[in-house]
Amino acid sequence: MNDSVLVVGSVAFDDVETPFGKRENALGGSAVFFSMAASHFTSPRMVGIAGTDFPEEAITMLQHHRVDIRGLEIVEGKTFRWGGVYHDDINQRDTLYTDLNVFADFKPVIPKEYRQTPFLFLGNIQPALQLDVLDQVENPKYIALDTMNLWINTTLDDLLTVIGKVDLLIINDSELVLLTKETNLLAGLKKLHTQGPQHIIIKKGEHGAFLSYNTEIFYSPAFPVKQATDPTGAGDSFAGGLMGYLAACKEINFTTLKKALVYGCVMGSFVVENFSTDGLTQLDRKQIESRYNALRKLVTI
Amino acid sequence: MNDSVLVVGSVAFDDVETPFGKRENALGGSAVFFSMAASHFTSPRMVGIAGTDFPEEAITMLQHHRVDIRGLEIVEGKTFRWGGVYHDDINQRDTLYTDLNVFADFKPVIPKEYRQTPFLFLGNIQPALQLDVLDQVENPKYIALDTMNLWINTTLDDLLTVIGKVDLLIINDSELVLLTKETNLLAGLKKLHTQGPQHIIIKKGEHGAFLSYNTEIFYSPAFPVKQATDPTGAGDSFAGGLMGYLAACKEINFTTLKKALVYGCVMGSFVVENFSTDGLTQLDRKQIESRYNALRKLVTI
Repeated sequence: MNDSVLVVGSVAFDDVETPFGKRENALGGSAVFFSMAASHFTSPRMVGIAGTDFPEEAITMLQHHRVDIRGLEIVEGKTFRWGGVYHDDINQRDTLYTDLNVFADFKPVIPKEYRQTPFLFLGNIQPALQLDVLDQVENPKYIALDTMNLWINTTLDDLLTVIGKVDLLIINDSELVLLTKETNLLAGLKKLHTQGPQHIIIKKGEHGAFLSYNTEIFYSPAFPVKQATDPTGAGDSFAGGLMGYLAACKEINFTTLKKALVYGCVMGSFVVENFSTDGLTQLDRKQIESRYNALRKLVTI
Repeated sequence: MNDSVLVVGSVAFDDVETPFGKRENALGGSAVFFSMAASHFTSPRMVGIAGTDFPEEAITMLQHHRVDIRGLEIVEGKTFRWGGVYHDDINQRDTLYTDLNVFADFKPVIPKEYRQTPFLFLGNIQPALQLDVLDQVENPKYIALDTMNLWINTTLDDLLTVIGKVDLLIINDSELVLLTKETNLLAGLKKLHTQGPQHIIIKKGEHGAFLSYNTEIFYSPAFPVKQATDPTGAGDSFAGGLMGYLAACKEINFTTLKKALVYGCVMGSFVVENFSTDGLTQLDRKQIESRYNALRKLVTI
């Protein structure tokens, strides 16, 4: 039986406009994208918060995908909302608004049934809350952490404390520079390893992702999609594919982590092809394996 | 015996400043970087122009590296000079000056002894001159072409004529967008293939390079260097390694082109680690093979 994976993160509605169209009230948030991607490999358990406006269809959809939502707290008020516009260069975006709503008072409570979950993903929330989560779980086998420039700039001490407690740190290339003050990838990774995590993944968006595993490195390109319709959720889906695949492995070693990173790239590519979680809902394992193989073939001589 | 490769391009002196230091009067130019990189695989033949200030040491150095310089015209006047400053983000640079000098009147003349060279690299010069070169060579086996945004913007018709006559087009990702008006890589490649070349390579700098071979694609990351000291000449060294390796192969097919692209990445990485051509002068084949293997290992599960 696969081990399950617990994610703590945001649950949101997004209003997104890209060069390829617009979508309002799109289900989003790190916990949602992560869970949906991970659900193709294992049973994800979600901890998050939503308002009373969170619709029945979203709950049904998540449950339909084997996402355990006993940890999704529904409270009086509105769900977190984010609005953004992506540029013609799809890597650039402007945030139009961020309405935290009920997410502003999010204090993650890990349900008793979740506390022994072996795989834990700390989605991008305040480092102090991530530390709270770590206090509530019992001997997780493998902990991965996401963060963002906001926490690097405003709560660095807390963030470094969390970083020191996790097995895998997943950040993007600009966050690596911000965190280490090193513009060179190898120099940044070296510095970061001394701060705790044995495993580090540097996401480079359409340029793929690096895995630094102690002193060894591995790289996978992103899957080249025909149309990057909406990049929202790509990073969380990457993490969901990665952690979902790992949770389904017997062992965590350099080889399984390499494969997990490629599955992460695969799940990220399915998400960006469509708005919201659409690219993850109609997907079957055969399509995932087919894209995994295509991505491997891309780098094979 | 290896086939030889003919390059037509610039010969220059560069004044370069990067976050890691500065170098004045550094030997540079596309024909020089290309030849020096190709010299590790085959005998390059260079066609270019320099002024009477071109020093004896540079000639000795090129000859020492088996570069045939019978096609290097030395004329009254000064050699082409370029000055530039690279930013902390080493991918950004400002040109301080461009003194074309004798390069302004460059009319490439292919020496009789060079006309049957099987491999031809048309370095980044005016498309009309590239067409002149094509008229002077006799049935080359394989022609590769480099160009730049200036020619895409100012002499597009000529450029499209040259593109229609070559086997391999080597451009960077921003030039692909400019040339095809497509921001998506696959869409851009598809459009470009209809304009002539069966083989297209898209350089993405530190993010590696794509090969589009008819309907198939291959990708290699760049070799992650510990310090990118000076990116000047990286693209031409990439092309030199690629064409040099190909010229030494018995056959041109998808497999040999894939390997050639990886050798291109390897030679590019040696150049950026040092100023000018320094990274190519002390190099032996063992170091090249070692880095080739490391680059392959980087993507191997």
